[in-house]
Amino acid sequence: MSDALLAALDVGGTKIAAALVSPDGAVLARTRRPTPADRDAEAVLAAAAEALTELADSALWPRVAALGIGSAGPVDISRGTVSPVNIPGWRGFPIVERIAAHPAVKGLPVTLAGDGIAIAAAEHRYGAARPYRNALCLVVSTGVGGGLVLNNELHTGTTGNAGHIGHISVAFDGEPCPCGSRGCLERYASGTAIARYALDTGWRPPADDASAVAVAASARTGDPLALAAFDRAARALAAGIAATATLVELDAAVIGGGVAETGDLLLAPLRTHLTTYAALPFAASLHLHRAQLGTDAGLVGAAAVAAALFEP
Amino acid sequence: MSDALLAALDVGGTKIAAALVSPDGAVLARTRRPTPADRDAEAVLAAAAEALTELADSALWPRVAALGIGSAGPVDISRGTVSPVNIPGWRGFPIVERIAAHPAVKGLPVTLAGDGIAIAAAEHRYGAARPYRNALCLVVSTGVGGGLVLNNELHTGTTGNAGHIGHISVAFDGEPCPCGSRGCLERYASGTAIARYALDTGWRPPADDASAVAVAASARTGDPLALAAFDRAARALAAGIAATATLVELDAAVIGGGVAETGDLLLAPLRTHLTTYAALPFAASLHLHRAQLGTDAGLVGAAAVAAALFEP
Repeated sequence: MSDALLAALDVGGTKIAAALVSPDGAVLARTRRPTPADRDAEAVLAAAAEALTELADSALWPRVAALGIGSAGPVDISRGTVSPVNIPGWRGFPIVERIAAHPAVKGLPVTLAGDGIAIAAAEHRYGAARPYRNALCLVVSTGVGGGLVLNNELHTGTTGNAGHIGHISVAFDGEPCPCGSRGCLERYASGTAIARYALDTGWRPPADDASAVAVAASARTGDPLALAAFDRAARALAAGIAATATLVELDAAVIGGGVAETGDLLLAPLRTHLTTYAALPFAASLHLHRAQLGTDAGLVGAAAVAAALFEP
Repeated sequence: MSDALLAALDVGGTKIAAALVSPDGAVLARTRRPTPADRDAEAVLAAAAEALTELADSALWPRVAALGIGSAGPVDISRGTVSPVNIPGWRGFPIVERIAAHPAVKGLPVTLAGDGIAIAAAEHRYGAARPYRNALCLVVSTGVGGGLVLNNELHTGTTGNAGHIGHISVAFDGEPCPCGSRGCLERYASGTAIARYALDTGWRPPADDASAVAVAASARTGDPLALAAFDRAARALAAGIAATATLVELDAAVIGGGVAETGDLLLAPLRTHLTTYAALPFAASLHLHRAQLGTDAGLVGAAAVAAALFEP
């Protein structure tokens, strides 16, 4: 497929993006729509279909060999359905079947992946996980998600939800999580959690901005409460990454998302705490890297999953 | 290999066992020696060699097609070496090379697996994990170990230590573990941990027996402190099993070892707590079973790993 291109559709709770992606991961054309998340199933589908229709106007479209869909989860790749938490109109929605019926898509192979797996695909094919046969790729943002590469292949799990590190318990006696469990990593390490913990421990937000971005700004000025909030998130993340390395053996963890973009505020304590939690020799050799794909990771990853169809 | 047999060598901190195992998992001949764990590397090897020499006297030995070694960890299957925690004389010991040089073994293929992986191999090939493509097999005893089957194959990891669930942190602010980490599952769920917690919370051991077996006996009479100790172990185990299911997607967890032999004392609260911690739909469908291979699991599993050499 030397001059073939991939089409990608990335469905999130706030936006739906579509793109044409070259085999080396470059985005050649793109479009996006707000997700009409409060409307019914057909209205959400219509937004995705419009994005694809616009993309198909590109002179490059005839070179498209396959379409990859990445979606907020849960997904079920065995059925081709999605039930994104933040899109209540889609529950068990047969996205593969419906998108495959789009006039511009008909006849093309269509793949589906959860957004965590898509990001892992992007980092493994084009980014920071490229050198590694076994890697966990994390997104630390308003939530915490992830995807796994094992033995040089994406490990999707039967339904496509493997790697969901934000909802492993790192504190079995910890606080309840909306998912129904207790002590989920996301309750300690997400941007939301960092801001909440800072406020709870007495941090005073400047200018009424109580976001994780504001906590990060305070931490950069040396505010001890803000620094403590990042340190706690880093400890919980270190426990979760180390648990993964202990369970499956990882060569590397690759970390992206808005909270990771604070750089050493998160990564310096994360490195320190990994030396505690990844104590066994086979886990201690883990490499830690920042993600390289940025905000295009979901789109490029959806394309990477489709590109894998053409591999030997 | 229709009439071929497997030889198995199982190296633990207290005993070294060797056996002849049929392709359907039956132990046809066996012998064992105490592990001279306080002696030097050659003395420990001599005990293993003697066990194999005795086994090779069997009239069945000429039918042996391969030898499987299972060993207490850590192991390094990429190098063929073992460094069992409780055998200080073996550190990076080249067990595959040395056993392959045994006069009775020369010319046979030799495989190496950690004991957790060996037990997973036994349960997947012959026992409770047979129906499943994705399973975690745990041993809950004086320690907590395990092994993973993913996509119908043993997931060893690069060095053979994957599935080491006893040393994932289920309490990132929890108590220090001798391994160097904090809040390891083994600190809450092992027999040792159950007995310690019961004592710490005021349980009175009858007849000076403060073992987990004695806690189990008290629990069966309705002692609330003994019951609470099992409940806490079950909660920690549920968090660890659910974390594994959330990370890799499991069809089943299979649980064996002395503490699991207490039956519903552990398994009933474990089932209850799994409904809390395995909250996401793709994790909630997990099946829980008791192990079927019993104390032969290590030997039969070492043979099962060797048997896999002959599969298509």
